[in-house]
Amino acid sequence: MLMDDKTFGERLRALARNDDAEQIRLELVDVRAEDIAEEFQRMSVEEGLSILQAIDSEKAAYILVELPTEIARSYTTELSDEALAHYLDILPMDDALDFREEVGPERFDDLLELIPTEDAQEIRRLLDYPEDSVGRILTEDFFEVKPETTMAELLEMIRQAPEDEYETVNDIYVLDERKHLLGVFSLRKALRALPQVTAAEVMHEEPITAEAREPAEDAARRMARYGFYALPVLDGRGRMVGLFTGDDAQTIIREEDTEDVLKMAAVSGDSEAYLSLSVWQLVRRRVPWLLALFVAESLTGNVLRYYGQGTESVKLNPIAFFIPLLIGAGGNSGSQVTTTITRALALGEVRPSDWWRVMRREFAAAVVAGAILGLVGFLRVWLKVPIIGWAESPGLALVVGLTLPAIILWSTSIGSLLPIAAKRLGLDPAVMSAPFITTFVDATGLIIYFEIALHVLGKI
Amino acid sequence: MLMDDKTFGERLRALARNDDAEQIRLELVDVRAEDIAEEFQRMSVEEGLSILQAIDSEKAAYILVELPTEIARSYTTELSDEALAHYLDILPMDDALDFREEVGPERFDDLLELIPTEDAQEIRRLLDYPEDSVGRILTEDFFEVKPETTMAELLEMIRQAPEDEYETVNDIYVLDERKHLLGVFSLRKALRALPQVTAAEVMHEEPITAEAREPAEDAARRMARYGFYALPVLDGRGRMVGLFTGDDAQTIIREEDTEDVLKMAAVSGDSEAYLSLSVWQLVRRRVPWLLALFVAESLTGNVLRYYGQGTESVKLNPIAFFIPLLIGAGGNSGSQVTTTITRALALGEVRPSDWWRVMRREFAAAVVAGAILGLVGFLRVWLKVPIIGWAESPGLALVVGLTLPAIILWSTSIGSLLPIAAKRLGLDPAVMSAPFITTFVDATGLIIYFEIALHVLGKI
Repeated sequence: MLMDDKTFGERLRALARNDDAEQIRLELVDVRAEDIAEEFQRMSVEEGLSILQAIDSEKAAYILVELPTEIARSYTTELSDEALAHYLDILPMDDALDFREEVGPERFDDLLELIPTEDAQEIRRLLDYPEDSVGRILTEDFFEVKPETTMAELLEMIRQAPEDEYETVNDIYVLDERKHLLGVFSLRKALRALPQVTAAEVMHEEPITAEAREPAEDAARRMARYGFYALPVLDGRGRMVGLFTGDDAQTIIREEDTEDVLKMAAVSGDSEAYLSLSVWQLVRRRVPWLLALFVAESLTGNVLRYYGQGTESVKLNPIAFFIPLLIGAGGNSGSQVTTTITRALALGEVRPSDWWRVMRREFAAAVVAGAILGLVGFLRVWLKVPIIGWAESPGLALVVGLTLPAIILWSTSIGSLLPIAAKRLGLDPAVMSAPFITTFVDATGLIIYFEIALHVLGKI
Repeated sequence: MLMDDKTFGERLRALARNDDAEQIRLELVDVRAEDIAEEFQRMSVEEGLSILQAIDSEKAAYILVELPTEIARSYTTELSDEALAHYLDILPMDDALDFREEVGPERFDDLLELIPTEDAQEIRRLLDYPEDSVGRILTEDFFEVKPETTMAELLEMIRQAPEDEYETVNDIYVLDERKHLLGVFSLRKALRALPQVTAAEVMHEEPITAEAREPAEDAARRMARYGFYALPVLDGRGRMVGLFTGDDAQTIIREEDTEDVLKMAAVSGDSEAYLSLSVWQLVRRRVPWLLALFVAESLTGNVLRYYGQGTESVKLNPIAFFIPLLIGAGGNSGSQVTTTITRALALGEVRPSDWWRVMRREFAAAVVAGAILGLVGFLRVWLKVPIIGWAESPGLALVVGLTLPAIILWSTSIGSLLPIAAKRLGLDPAVMSAPFITTFVDATGLIIYFEIALHVLGKI
């Protein structure tokens, strides 16, 4: 069982700083790779390296696989080709493929030269499948028999199979001589059948399968739908080439759900763990969307100018033209942040005790986003070029250009702190929803706008 | 394998209408309960009943379990106590508990009188665990041995166990005489060990466990984290009482993710399948939030009135006071709809061919939401009661009261059709994100507002 989080993380760092390999190995012998990997995200590369080098290679290899790509990369650059090739050799095929992103395709090719030729060929073959397809994450270890194999023969085969192969030997797959899947049965069923009964007699026909080239998400949802623990994977010619296992399916669904959640809040990018992202990556995932929405939202300014200035029927103070634009930008940046943090809290990637870590990076990202949108906003209001600019007074342009960063900083702070505060208070962070944050920022953002306007312009 | 969806659904309905029990049974003998259940959502209760009564009881029981609660309820009210008690008797404990919601607690208690006393007691015991806890969905079938059991004895026990018990016999749990969990080992490991070896010798100690009273979501995330297929469940005194299996964990995570996604878009309620919800339920899940956000957003009106009327420095046409309020309501209702539909598309609950079904219900829900918000908006603008109303002219109040339903209908249509259209075009529906819909509705909503204003008020 996992120790109290804080204690474990602190002890791990203390161990790493002492750099006593023997003690590290002893302390971590019963701790799982997943738990150690989580603490790596709050550790320096130096500390992490002394842990990786102290523990046994298999656990070290799994820690690297569990780490978010960005963090793993900072370790792989420090490790020798020999060490990495050794890890590659230890890992199952699907995990070995993960290494490609973590060391980069070129170095990965070099590493393949250092492992047994057969394994290297196998890995290259899997790389031929489309990205995010079932083929990329299939497990090649499955237990196959011929239709005429008897239960007595099967049990003997299992006894003689080398240890640690056939992770998922609980199901036995029946293949014909062309490797076509005929049926499946459970090991338990085999045990209960008489010794002379054949595989063909006990098997279920027409199992639910996955195609190696189909998107892994589709296969994962199908597996979940039927409540299976593994699906046999067929290649284009109907031959069984591996298994798609439940743990991989769960990972895929978690990642796809995360991507969807973020996309729905206009944040792009993959499902990398929040704390492993640099400020620059946060900016890259959000600012293009913020800008695109800002440009689209500036249509509201056109509408307001059209009715408020272009027609004789409505008289509107130009200060009003930018209200939707400004509160829209605040709402959008607040939504991006609150959704990101809420998801990270749900997945346990962020804990309430990380609040200062979160604030620091969000604030830095908001400064960049605010500066960019502020500049674009200023130009949009001030420029005298038709279509591109609205040719308003420089004072008004300045007000808009100053209000944008102020509102973005404000909404980012609210959007990152409220979900963490909710979690800390034992509430569901998801109630600090995007609409809630947006509404809150709308009213408060207008105060910011008018105060800046009154200070810059005086009477409006 | 599943046939082409449309063909299968149509054939199933044709079969149901013919009501030839023998033919129905034959056609569906190889079709899985999950696939049949999905089509029940697009079928009349009459059609569904003739299918349920034709097929074998086990499959019928599983179909009822798979159905969304609301739809299942329409069937259970039609079925006799005897039929339901028979289903209850067939199902595993955790599925049997699902029946409680589907028939209502009182009738469920009556049904418990009709099944074997021992099972009824067991079900009552599980009902003592908190809702949404692991205890409510644990599987009581697991294979336990004593530490001194030898492999030869174990294999003999498995051979003699009654068929269909011990769903998850792939792992063997080692318990002491007080039922405390000592360790676990795989059936495969047992097969490979020598016959005289004892369980205590082959088992792994300190397995990852779940507590019966802990939230199922926590245990499910832990299982996913370590990539296990089942966790042993301990009661308050550390005794092993069952298994929390991977398929239940997947269901829990899917439901929790759905609830979170919806909550983040200010839609309350559980994870019932979208198409099974009535218009009234859609309204109940959304309108309270819309109203709360509307009231909160009306603070923007106060801010604008304060600066635009209360001070001498800013001159603002009262028409501008309601801009954030109106586009906010449009954005919120659009976000609710687009998020709901995008999630339903991702889970396969809604297909592009359901677009008209979706539109019809969303339109009906929007009419109700629009009427309520329109009335509240009218009163808010018109009433002369301090704090509650703004005492503006009846004309302006009418404009706001008319614009609200118009904007809500508009944003709902956009929010429901765009994700479906995206899916149809092979794009990811999640790009039709809430911020995208909100931005689009902001600009177009203002046109609606000013056009209504010009028609009602003339010069403004």
